Amino acid sequence: MSLIVFGSMAFDDIETPFGKSNKIVGGAATYIAWCATNFIPVKQVSIIGGDFPKEELDALSSRGVSMEGVQVKKDEKSFYWSGRYHLDMNTRDTLVTELNAAGAFQPVLPDSYQDCDFLMLGNWAPQVQLNVIEQLKRRPKLIAMDTMNFWMDTAMSDLEKLLTKVDVLLVNDSEARQLSGQYSLVKAAAVIARMGPKYVVIKKGEHGALLFNDGHVFFAPALPLEDVFDPTGAGDTFAGGFIGHLARTKDISFENMKTAIIVGSAMASFCVEKFGTNRLREITKPDIDSRIQQFVDLVNFDIALV
Amino acid sequence: MSLIVFGSMAFDDIETPFGKSNKIVGGAATYIAWCATNFIPVKQVSIIGGDFPKEELDALSSRGVSMEGVQVKKDEKSFYWSGRYHLDMNTRDTLVTELNAAGAFQPVLPDSYQDCDFLMLGNWAPQVQLNVIEQLKRRPKLIAMDTMNFWMDTAMSDLEKLLTKVDVLLVNDSEARQLSGQYSLVKAAAVIARMGPKYVVIKKGEHGALLFNDGHVFFAPALPLEDVFDPTGAGDTFAGGFIGHLARTKDISFENMKTAIIVGSAMASFCVEKFGTNRLREITKPDIDSRIQQFVDLVNFDIALV
Repeated sequence: MSLIVFGSMAFDDIETPFGKSNKIVGGAATYIAWCATNFIPVKQVSIIGGDFPKEELDALSSRGVSMEGVQVKKDEKSFYWSGRYHLDMNTRDTLVTELNAAGAFQPVLPDSYQDCDFLMLGNWAPQVQLNVIEQLKRRPKLIAMDTMNFWMDTAMSDLEKLLTKVDVLLVNDSEARQLSGQYSLVKAAAVIARMGPKYVVIKKGEHGALLFNDGHVFFAPALPLEDVFDPTGAGDTFAGGFIGHLARTKDISFENMKTAIIVGSAMASFCVEKFGTNRLREITKPDIDSRIQQFVDLVNFDIALV
Repeated sequence: MSLIVFGSMAFDDIETPFGKSNKIVGGAATYIAWCATNFIPVKQVSIIGGDFPKEELDALSSRGVSMEGVQVKKDEKSFYWSGRYHLDMNTRDTLVTELNAAGAFQPVLPDSYQDCDFLMLGNWAPQVQLNVIEQLKRRPKLIAMDTMNFWMDTAMSDLEKLLTKVDVLLVNDSEARQLSGQYSLVKAAAVIARMGPKYVVIKKGEHGALLFNDGHVFFAPALPLEDVFDPTGAGDTFAGGFIGHLARTKDISFENMKTAIIVGSAMASFCVEKFGTNRLREITKPDIDSRIQQFVDLVNFDIALV
């Protein structure tokens, strides 16, 4: 029973109304791993350049992240992204994207990864995400994936093929609308489910997240925070909490997915409190438990009074 | 023990991506009354012209709305508003506003209204809202009010004076931001609470509503609907459900306010399903009970699994 996390490990350079991060460690798989290791060890699949900090790799290893599936291109640079947020943290401008080492990534799954029961595919070209699935000799119990508008514009047929192979799609609201051609998120989720994923998770940033499955719907709010300091990685952290909880409990029922959505929301609420992965590095099990209790208090009401 | 509802009774002319309403009955106090009478009788305070339909007044009377405080200006026309929504139903363009009879409204509370324990002040000039409060010889158990950006631009000192006299302010997110000068809704609520209202309700349309009180926060989602057909009056219907539940249960604790927020959200989810008050006219007690159960299912999760 193990969890594979696939996605980018990168450098980010972030500007928000609260300040500048300068060049820091980022990437979908980095956030997912920092988050999911609170619940279960992770087998990482990614690619980095020779400039990726050894201390970061050591820190992840010591948290229980296997690096056997992480390719190191010594003479190349790591993926680099630079972006700017405005007061409305739900949208951002990309300033620079340099693929570098990630440009021609051909993932190779080590034999030791073949016991995979849970697979989390972070955002990447759908053809490469599909390649990871196809390398597994036994289908995992649950495959979840993220994607983005860019692939809908440039690789829609690959994406459609991939969607038939996965159980859970996690996307944000604008991505769900583009993928489905529906403005209503209820209708969008129904259209997407017909494309393959039985479970559709639509993330609405500060407005929470919706889980759709077979006519049922569950809603988790985002925690109302005094300030969202840096939303970078919040979606990946959400995915890490979601898949981490499912992999730890080995229960993929709709009921347990609800709880997984709350765990994801709680973890994302930490992520946005500081730049990059900084907050995720600090938090402890009691912090997480107390944050999840805040979500209980946030939405619980007494139906008997109605 | 009674509930007074103050606000406009009007004609609306609405255009949405789904169609045109033509001239139909609307106005804050109309929506609030149609909604709140599911829970408790209403004593209405408003003003209408000679053109307001007798059938509408009869329909409201037969639901338990006292019309003694509604002035009829026989030779004038009723307040008229025309507006257009786009695909994003959270914003709208006002096309026409004609105050007509409402222009010089001086409300006069009948003696029979002096037993008021719950007062809901729909959006109007704050000076006139204040005048209603000042006519009550005994302070109600709870005073709730709505307002809008227009009064912050044009009558801020009146609004500030009024805010010191009320218990609950219900505003939408952009209004909360303008009133407080804070972008973060958590900070906005704290600033507004210092202006007077112990309870601050911030409505976020399709993204739900937040209730703040003394460092506590509660969140109610909006029901995910296939289509929001017409959002006009949803905020007023929310207010009607909120105050109606509180007045019926006579319990103004924070715990019961949470339930009142859910009741308001459930009622608003009906309102948006058809033009104007059409859906509110149809629904029955079993419809309401079943809708509230949908809210329970929407947010309930099993903490024991975490």
